[in-house]
Amino acid sequence: MSYGLYIVTSRADDRLNGQIVNTVVQVTSDPPRVAVIINKKNLTHELIQKSGIFGVSVLDDSATLPFLGPFGFRSGREIDKLSKVKHKAGITGCPLVTEQALSVLEARVINQIDLGSHTIFVGDTIRSESLKEGNPLTYKFYQEK
Amino acid sequence: MSYGLYIVTSRADDRLNGQIVNTVVQVTSDPPRVAVIINKKNLTHELIQKSGIFGVSVLDDSATLPFLGPFGFRSGREIDKLSKVKHKAGITGCPLVTEQALSVLEARVINQIDLGSHTIFVGDTIRSESLKEGNPLTYKFYQEK
Repeated sequence: MSYGLYIVTSRADDRLNGQIVNTVVQVTSDPPRVAVIINKKNLTHELIQKSGIFGVSVLDDSATLPFLGPFGFRSGREIDKLSKVKHKAGITGCPLVTEQALSVLEARVINQIDLGSHTIFVGDTIRSESLKEGNPLTYKFYQEK
Repeated sequence: MSYGLYIVTSRADDRLNGQIVNTVVQVTSDPPRVAVIINKKNLTHELIQKSGIFGVSVLDDSATLPFLGPFGFRSGREIDKLSKVKHKAGITGCPLVTEQALSVLEARVINQIDLGSHTIFVGDTIRSESLKEGNPLTYKFYQEK
């Protein structure tokens, strides 16, 4: 399977977090809906469950390993990942990572499927914003680089 | 968003069909589950709804337009798409397109979400088979070619 590579973020109360996700898909264009698949063990999963809100940053293929590393290999239960990168609050208060990203969107969960180890969250896009031109990072490109 | 490009097939009674889909994702690895997103207007959607079975062919990036065209631009209600390409029956009887494909799998639907214009079908993989080495076709590569 071929995938992109994204940072999915969420917020519940004062807790913010984000993580690398390869399974983000636009599921319908009208209305604009997106689905993300998240491991149940992850803090981001817990925050999305609580708040029903998530953000997605489409990464630039020039994204660097020091930037990506904490989002892929560390848990938000151990470190405050967002303190180290540029981000802003969306309409819902969800953090949106703007550093090394081509675009961001935020979405409100309208449905979900329990997949066992993971959950699919389907959200209505509340707002999306293009930040700059570039080539989106793909999982294959990342592996090869 | 970055996507691959796949042929999703199904069968209900004696009716076979398949279509191009870009939104195929592996949702969990243990057990191996895949999700496909299909437009409700499509014959393939009707067949998956009836039978609860679908097949996925991961396409080779050398796949040709004459081969892909009927799966992307024609309806199975007008033409018999599978009569024109090499395929075989899976364990469930689902047709699996083996031509210009790197691998095939068949899955049984365990859950679904109604997304309005589309449905997400989540399936347990019954069997998968690698056919040959190669680079999987991506949506971006297809557009550029």
